Amino acid sequence: MKMKGFITFEGGECSGKTTIINEICKLFDELKIKYITTREPGGIRIAEDIRNIILDVNNTAMTKECEALLYAASRMQHLSEKVIPAIKDGKIVICDRFIDSSLAYQGYARGLGMESVLKANSFALDYMPDLTIFIDVTPDVALKRMSNKDRCGKVDRLDKEDISFHERVYKGYHEVLKMYPERIKRIDGNKPLNEVIEDCKKVILDYIGV
Amino acid sequence: MKMKGFITFEGGECSGKTTIINEICKLFDELKIKYITTREPGGIRIAEDIRNIILDVNNTAMTKECEALLYAASRMQHLSEKVIPAIKDGKIVICDRFIDSSLAYQGYARGLGMESVLKANSFALDYMPDLTIFIDVTPDVALKRMSNKDRCGKVDRLDKEDISFHERVYKGYHEVLKMYPERIKRIDGNKPLNEVIEDCKKVILDYIGV
Repeated sequence: MKMKGFITFEGGECSGKTTIINEICKLFDELKIKYITTREPGGIRIAEDIRNIILDVNNTAMTKECEALLYAASRMQHLSEKVIPAIKDGKIVICDRFIDSSLAYQGYARGLGMESVLKANSFALDYMPDLTIFIDVTPDVALKRMSNKDRCGKVDRLDKEDISFHERVYKGYHEVLKMYPERIKRIDGNKPLNEVIEDCKKVILDYIGV
Repeated sequence: MKMKGFITFEGGECSGKTTIINEICKLFDELKIKYITTREPGGIRIAEDIRNIILDVNNTAMTKECEALLYAASRMQHLSEKVIPAIKDGKIVICDRFIDSSLAYQGYARGLGMESVLKANSFALDYMPDLTIFIDVTPDVALKRMSNKDRCGKVDRLDKEDISFHERVYKGYHEVLKMYPERIKRIDGNKPLNEVIEDCKKVILDYIGV
């Protein structure tokens, strides 16, 4: 089931999501469209508590299934306390990453399997985004950007494992795209950022019917 | 999917489970059968951490779906770290409560719904008990025992809400019994405890083929 007004952004590292979402916010401000932006766990206390268990370095014995269920639990709380109330309030909700990230990262790149991620997230399937924008940046372009701190300042070091992981995430996203071809709009993220932003604006304006 | 050697005990308050399990342990000792007894979270650190979030009095905003997923996550970790290794080691595992408790208590008595509990526990459905013994004590008998501290010392106070809750748990267990008539053996728990113990021993001995 899709939730009208629920828009998610997806993409690997250095896809420019943060900048793009900021520009969409400016557009919504100009158009006087009511919206919120969020990302999991979104400042929701229970969701943060759950995330802390997942990220606890002492919890190395955690099974993939347990981890997937914890992410799903955190997601449900964020949905219930933040996303759904805003939608009910007539606002557009722009969420940076959602279930597709779990599918691409945990399901595909980490090898948990798409089916396992979907099983754990079966409640969230009742609250799916109405529109998902996937910023598609090929691994070679992403890696170039990672060595250029102006565009993607977070990454200091790259080894073979990183590169192969980014490639798996990329493949994972393309698997997800095949699973949900109607919901997910692919935007070519290899283009210059200003063009990517314009392409995203077009998709968003088309969606909200302006 | 069922796991050979995985036995669970189910029943409401004052059903005598603890005493019965102790007697089964003595029987296994006499027969030199290798076994372990456990109950969730079973001393598993990650499972305990998850349980602490569920029981945190500050987390009143927790949704039923989030709670069900947290119980399921804790269950998977307990299965993975304690139950499955013992089964692989050729031991019988006797577990005090498992998924049927979630179905009767959360699913039915608390109103979350059987379907929701099953959804959250979809991974655990791959590791179901091979035999479940349900000690069936009717609410009137359980309530009489609750006022007799010799048999059931935990309960100090009973109000209408408690009584109605115990009745819902009772109905919940009978719904679960209908769902899994082959796996779950119903034992009449209204009888004197020594007879209940004998009936349970018969079922167990029949199961292990002694």
